[in-house]
Amino acid sequence: MNFNIQNVLIAVEDGYAKVDVQVLDGTIVAIAPSLDVVGTLINGDNKLLLPGFVNAHTHSSEMWQRGIMSNFPLELWLAEMYDFAPLDPEKVYLSALGTAVETLLSGGTSVVDHLVLIPGKELETIATAVRAYREIGIRAFVAPLIQDESLTAGIPSGGTSQTHDPYFLSTATTLELIEEAVRQFHRPDEGVSILVAPTGIQLCSDTLFEGCIELSDRYNLCRHSHLLETKAQEKLAQEKYGCSGVEHLKQIGYLGEVTTLAHCVWLTDKDIAMLAETKSTVVHNPLSNLRLGSGIAPILKYRQAGVNVTFGCDGASSNDSQDLLEAIKIGSILHNVTDLDYRHWLTPRQALEMASLGGVKGLNMADQLGSLSVGKKADLVLYDLTNLSLLPRTDPIGLLVLGRPTNVVDSVWVNGKQIIAEGKVTTINMDELRYALFNHSQWETNRKSQTVSQIEAHYRTVMGF
Amino acid sequence: MNFNIQNVLIAVEDGYAKVDVQVLDGTIVAIAPSLDVVGTLINGDNKLLLPGFVNAHTHSSEMWQRGIMSNFPLELWLAEMYDFAPLDPEKVYLSALGTAVETLLSGGTSVVDHLVLIPGKELETIATAVRAYREIGIRAFVAPLIQDESLTAGIPSGGTSQTHDPYFLSTATTLELIEEAVRQFHRPDEGVSILVAPTGIQLCSDTLFEGCIELSDRYNLCRHSHLLETKAQEKLAQEKYGCSGVEHLKQIGYLGEVTTLAHCVWLTDKDIAMLAETKSTVVHNPLSNLRLGSGIAPILKYRQAGVNVTFGCDGASSNDSQDLLEAIKIGSILHNVTDLDYRHWLTPRQALEMASLGGVKGLNMADQLGSLSVGKKADLVLYDLTNLSLLPRTDPIGLLVLGRPTNVVDSVWVNGKQIIAEGKVTTINMDELRYALFNHSQWETNRKSQTVSQIEAHYRTVMGF
Repeated sequence: MNFNIQNVLIAVEDGYAKVDVQVLDGTIVAIAPSLDVVGTLINGDNKLLLPGFVNAHTHSSEMWQRGIMSNFPLELWLAEMYDFAPLDPEKVYLSALGTAVETLLSGGTSVVDHLVLIPGKELETIATAVRAYREIGIRAFVAPLIQDESLTAGIPSGGTSQTHDPYFLSTATTLELIEEAVRQFHRPDEGVSILVAPTGIQLCSDTLFEGCIELSDRYNLCRHSHLLETKAQEKLAQEKYGCSGVEHLKQIGYLGEVTTLAHCVWLTDKDIAMLAETKSTVVHNPLSNLRLGSGIAPILKYRQAGVNVTFGCDGASSNDSQDLLEAIKIGSILHNVTDLDYRHWLTPRQALEMASLGGVKGLNMADQLGSLSVGKKADLVLYDLTNLSLLPRTDPIGLLVLGRPTNVVDSVWVNGKQIIAEGKVTTINMDELRYALFNHSQWETNRKSQTVSQIEAHYRTVMGF
Repeated sequence: MNFNIQNVLIAVEDGYAKVDVQVLDGTIVAIAPSLDVVGTLINGDNKLLLPGFVNAHTHSSEMWQRGIMSNFPLELWLAEMYDFAPLDPEKVYLSALGTAVETLLSGGTSVVDHLVLIPGKELETIATAVRAYREIGIRAFVAPLIQDESLTAGIPSGGTSQTHDPYFLSTATTLELIEEAVRQFHRPDEGVSILVAPTGIQLCSDTLFEGCIELSDRYNLCRHSHLLETKAQEKLAQEKYGCSGVEHLKQIGYLGEVTTLAHCVWLTDKDIAMLAETKSTVVHNPLSNLRLGSGIAPILKYRQAGVNVTFGCDGASSNDSQDLLEAIKIGSILHNVTDLDYRHWLTPRQALEMASLGGVKGLNMADQLGSLSVGKKADLVLYDLTNLSLLPRTDPIGLLVLGRPTNVVDSVWVNGKQIIAEGKVTTINMDELRYALFNHSQWETNRKSQTVSQIEAHYRTVMGF
């Protein structure tokens, strides 16, 4: 689709300019005042145009349990979540759509879905999520979540002798499955990429990591994992490797420019230097880190060390939403209490660059996406500055980041295709989506996780409660 | 207005029940299944009914600077704010309406406006805010912000010799002004109360506090102040009194059941015990505490000590919104990183009770408001559970508190009068409000506060930067 956005506000240096933006065949071809109109004319009056953000870490199917998960730290929370996750492909489809809609309506044009796979239906799960993302039109980075150790292996032993059930799939089978997913679904030019995504050091063997590195190199795939989200994982890394988790991943060659690492809460200064050296990207998920009591990731330190940082919502049952602007706001202001010198605090403009360019850097697409630049793909978001939540008129970017913008996304284009217009999704029927989510669920309150009752005592002992 | 809400979900014990709720003459008269219909029938299908929350600390006119304030700690931020606050009554009117709308659309039915007064137009400022709140119909607790020391006196001297300009109004004149405001506007039965509201120990003499206590006793007024929001204020209290700010306020008799204290970030365990003993209320403003880098208020400790705690948005230029559900969410999950034992964390139901009953307790109205109980006033909020942000169906209260609810408020009644219906404000013209906010403002970026440049060097020295 070819179009001109006319007379729209864009960010320049420390201020704003009113310009026209011309898009041809999915690419931004001109940004200047008073351009000739080619194709559709979009009125940009009283609107702000920004590059789309990346929801750089989520698990779409967690949407089914948002709002109901107990007050637990990650290790127990995971046990509860898996006890109540009897997912079927239909649900995977609906929650992928729901995740995409909330991401789009909060300024995101790309989503990294660290996708939980239904046991026995792994490829079908991936196919279903890919179908949903293609239908709605968001740019999708599908990262099938894999592991080769069972859940209890993720809790430190604390010197006690613990046995764990073997994982139900072999490492080799899992790697074959990912390779097959790459063959079937990896189509970066069509807006769908597959990532290798071992869940993290807590549940993956070195063999699995090494297999992922090999696939990543062979097929030019990005890499995505959790890293040192909790204090328990920090302990576990020491037990497992006798060094920090970062040091171990560096040794085996997992870190690098195409590696995005979710959380990174419990890193030492030495670990941080290794992330900078390897040009790895940190995905900051502030809401989930608070909700699960994981801690406050040292984001100001990362930036001072030159580490690329971007934002994610994380799965909706630890957030419990997919509002990317909320993650950007909290991920900006949270750190002001960790460093009293206000000259080190993140500015709204820095936060937006982290959310856009920072996001695509780790996905190896910074040359094609992440800024309003001639020659880049048109993944664009147009914000309505006459909405109450963006009034009165002050600094539009300041208020977008630090306020609580509601119903402010007027239009979204991905690769030049418009998928939100006048605040409405144009590619799917939203009423049908809501009815389906409603009909596939029940209001409930008290649940009791059997796995939690089996592991909680050990967890409390190890963590010193 | 008389009405029945039929077949609506309400919270009971740990679960939910479907009931009818009958309201006559502004009072809840029955809560039970299948009641006879008296007056208007409201369909409660797929909706949740909760008592209204209290936005227990804000400064409405700060709305004019939301989004544009620099990254500063409170002391410098205040200097910048006052440098750019050439307010007129028309702006006070519009921002009071804006504050009310955002509060109502995020579940609040009451607002405590710690109202910044226009110099020379103090009574007119109060009259204007009262007019706005009466027009829109929110229950208003107008707390005219008073002080009798000038801004620079709020920064600790750090042992250096500092001189401060005298405040432009005498203490006696200020107290007379408040007494006049009470005579003219204090009408609790009509939904408007005036509070005595010395801004805090940092800018008020004991004479001013004592005058406020006297007025409070004579006219049965609640008391509202900031307390130990920043580390600088903690230092200042020691310089000024040779003891903690809490200890001093207790000594002069300011604390008590009708005293609400915003922030309370820098309190010792001994201070906390004094708040509990005097039955004072803490108003937690998590977003502003993060935005200004003030710190994390020890809310879990307050609750363990038996201190009543509720939530506020704080003024919109330190938040930068008036979304009460956002404040409740962040004020719930923020504390999980301060106490790793998850058994101490706030639950969504506790958070809602803090936001409703906790709010009215400090305003001396717990016998009339704050819960769904027969005999209490009908300050009610009806939430639409078929909205995408509250789907799929899980635990409605869990998702309301921990999610990012958007457009979920279907109806609001204050004292039995409906002021929101089908998500729209019924009492004022919202388009007119938006146009007025738009027309009274300009997009801007770089501002330079002269006062900040005068005081910053001293501030940095005292704070050890």
